[in-house]
Amino acid sequence: MRPANPLQREAKRTALLDAAAQCFAEAGFVATRTADICSTAGMSSGNLFHYFSSKHELLLALIAREGEETAAAMTALVAAEDPMAALSGFLEHVCQLASDRHYAGLALEISALGHRDEAVAHLVKANDLVLREGLAALVDAAGRSGQLHTNLSPEQAATWLAALIDGLFARVAADPQFNPQDQSQVLQQLVAHLLQGR
Amino acid sequence: MRPANPLQREAKRTALLDAAAQCFAEAGFVATRTADICSTAGMSSGNLFHYFSSKHELLLALIAREGEETAAAMTALVAAEDPMAALSGFLEHVCQLASDRHYAGLALEISALGHRDEAVAHLVKANDLVLREGLAALVDAAGRSGQLHTNLSPEQAATWLAALIDGLFARVAADPQFNPQDQSQVLQQLVAHLLQGR
Repeated sequence: MRPANPLQREAKRTALLDAAAQCFAEAGFVATRTADICSTAGMSSGNLFHYFSSKHELLLALIAREGEETAAAMTALVAAEDPMAALSGFLEHVCQLASDRHYAGLALEISALGHRDEAVAHLVKANDLVLREGLAALVDAAGRSGQLHTNLSPEQAATWLAALIDGLFARVAADPQFNPQDQSQVLQQLVAHLLQGR
Repeated sequence: MRPANPLQREAKRTALLDAAAQCFAEAGFVATRTADICSTAGMSSGNLFHYFSSKHELLLALIAREGEETAAAMTALVAAEDPMAALSGFLEHVCQLASDRHYAGLALEISALGHRDEAVAHLVKANDLVLREGLAALVDAAGRSGQLHTNLSPEQAATWLAALIDGLFARVAADPQFNPQDQSQVLQQLVAHLLQGR
């Protein structure tokens, strides 16, 4: 049944996106059946097609949602009074996310899918740009607050912040003993060096 | 025809590995047919099966060869008189490899395949360990030469060097405007900070 109430519809759509995120992270996109997603969301099989035309459309909606969440997080960060403290808090949050097997598994699954699926690659690149533009705005704000000591442009600094975040997630995939939360201090020091030369 | 001469056999095997690397980088593993590999290697179709039982076995041999090359490169680096200069030269070389669309494409393809193929994942992790152990030995040698100023253990330093290298390759995939060779100075500075606190 498709609820007539828009709020109920939105709640069901969100439940399906959450369930898909869990299934894709655990079993991978290809091995996940739409029935698995419905069952994880506590809905009857086939209900999914009232909301998404295919498993692939659900995947794309999931990646788009991730982009919206990144954009909202970045807007909040850029508005912070102390930009460097905001960046430091964001990096702490990223270390937590990378330590979350479920989140990291989904990120790696999407990145692997993007390698051979143009629609996924397009959205992943758009999300990456949202992240980098947000980080560049944050670095720019830190500069205007007199918090920087670097020759890098905000865009170049944002690129290296993104590279460090990518590297963190890649280490999770490569090395089972790597715990991002244990490494957050080293990350913060590298970022302080990158932006403040110390 | 399968040559009886072991040197000829080895040359043909190498030609097939090189051809497979090119095909996988350009078209992806799934889309590549064994006939494409033979044609790229200048051999008649089917010849491949005298050397490899399947396209998958060829892929695994390619990843294993990459590991052997990394091990040889690491042995040479660790024997260098000036460990920090050797590391710096190695990072310069990595920036060149990441700038090579063919090499970077193959690295990303293999990493994506490893996400759902256990045999690939196993070899990729083994190669990663060879890299990290080599880097840790190099950092250790730098420490014994009095070139370090860091609280990180050689293993932790090697992990962050690997994270920076991962980040470099991930930026190539995410951002078409990212040119690793333009960024090698920033990378070298981050590494100097990581290992020498400056």
